Amino acid sequence: MKKEMLFVLSIVLLSACGERERMIDKIVDLSYSYDSTTVYWPTEKGFVFEKGFEGVTPGGWYYTANRFWTPEHGGTHIDAPIHFYKDRNTVDQIPLDQLIGPGLVVDVSEECAADRDYLIQIEDFTAWEKKHGLFVSNAIVLVRTGFGKYWPDRAKYMGTDERGDSAVAKLHFPGLHPEAAHWLVNVRKIKAIGIDTPSIDRGQSKDFKSHVALYEKNTPALENVANLDQLPEKGFTVIALPMKIKGGSGGPVRIVALLD
Amino acid sequence: MKKEMLFVLSIVLLSACGERERMIDKIVDLSYSYDSTTVYWPTEKGFVFEKGFEGVTPGGWYYTANRFWTPEHGGTHIDAPIHFYKDRNTVDQIPLDQLIGPGLVVDVSEECAADRDYLIQIEDFTAWEKKHGLFVSNAIVLVRTGFGKYWPDRAKYMGTDERGDSAVAKLHFPGLHPEAAHWLVNVRKIKAIGIDTPSIDRGQSKDFKSHVALYEKNTPALENVANLDQLPEKGFTVIALPMKIKGGSGGPVRIVALLD
Repeated sequence: MKKEMLFVLSIVLLSACGERERMIDKIVDLSYSYDSTTVYWPTEKGFVFEKGFEGVTPGGWYYTANRFWTPEHGGTHIDAPIHFYKDRNTVDQIPLDQLIGPGLVVDVSEECAADRDYLIQIEDFTAWEKKHGLFVSNAIVLVRTGFGKYWPDRAKYMGTDERGDSAVAKLHFPGLHPEAAHWLVNVRKIKAIGIDTPSIDRGQSKDFKSHVALYEKNTPALENVANLDQLPEKGFTVIALPMKIKGGSGGPVRIVALLD
Repeated sequence: MKKEMLFVLSIVLLSACGERERMIDKIVDLSYSYDSTTVYWPTEKGFVFEKGFEGVTPGGWYYTANRFWTPEHGGTHIDAPIHFYKDRNTVDQIPLDQLIGPGLVVDVSEECAADRDYLIQIEDFTAWEKKHGLFVSNAIVLVRTGFGKYWPDRAKYMGTDERGDSAVAKLHFPGLHPEAAHWLVNVRKIKAIGIDTPSIDRGQSKDFKSHVALYEKNTPALENVANLDQLPEKGFTVIALPMKIKGGSGGPVRIVALLD
């Protein structure tokens, strides 16, 4: 992948040679914080912060440190392809250049406001392309359902604030149509996808076919992505760096967008 | 900080306009994986991976997911300034542009091979400057002690493989002299510092004065940084994105270097 040079990132120090420069005038944080309000799947307990020491030590200096427990999948996290497809990449195996690339936002917030169970179609992507040109090779595609505005209100964000196995059938949030997932990985061959909901398949999915289609092709998904309303539809670079859990099926990821 | 534009990062898509381009021909991963062998402070239990479900679901598709427990400080992690200084930034408060910047490697591996308790001096930094020019403003300075080659052998890496409070006095690894820490934050005003040992103060430190000096100035430290032997002394960008733990004193961080 590195050799393909499907995108080029040029880093120019201010002190360096006279190449033409474009500035970053904004870094957008696309990750939510982890705390007791962070949204997890109804079957999971959520983030457990264990407050450790805080105070002045016998030696006279201030000190604080903590510990935590968490499922891999909750908050702003990455699904490694192995999460839904055997023998695909674990989170530590995802090539880093798959997680750094030109970003684009496909805005389906009107459709999702009208229908909580909306399935994002191939036509939603081609509508973007009619406006901006074909998806650049190896794009990181961010789907904006608009549901980020509900975070962290579980009832509004997920469709239910109940917990446990019985709550899963009550999940209502939009997601990617499996045909659109196939198109992204087989026709456009994107690097990765992200969405501002808890899952790349919609809440009412019973078979998770978009997960399976993406992960079969080793294409990871970013879920519960924050602040997509702060991004333009194109003209930025996404950098998504996950916690490197050996053999993990996913995990916490810090995602930033560098705007031109 | 963003407005200061002390470094400029120019992102040019292959499909885009005719600006002169420089390619990334290498991304170096500066983070170790988290697993049962990951090195933590002797007083901490270490990384606990809780294997969850793995197999074929009743619906017929493969699925796997896990959970984990960890102290904030272990493996390749960031110290937020509040770790050793009251009322300074927690990990979620560290400005993102402090974690993205021009990187440089100061190699003191010869000195540290000769003396496990070596203290990195201001002169080690000025020797680098004599060779390459003054540290660029807002650099991310990576100190290469060479101890990364011992990872994850605790006895070689830390000086002891014992556990518990009594093991702390037996720690022997190099670290930053407090005067050098003061110089970095008050004279050169760097963005952040990293080191390939478990702590920015040496193992034999009893007062952690380098931690205190750095964190008073809200300058975070990256510890247990991996693969510094794969970097040149200059000519790369560091991107260090930590897990966004609300109120955290530090946490897991994925660090990459983008080489020109």
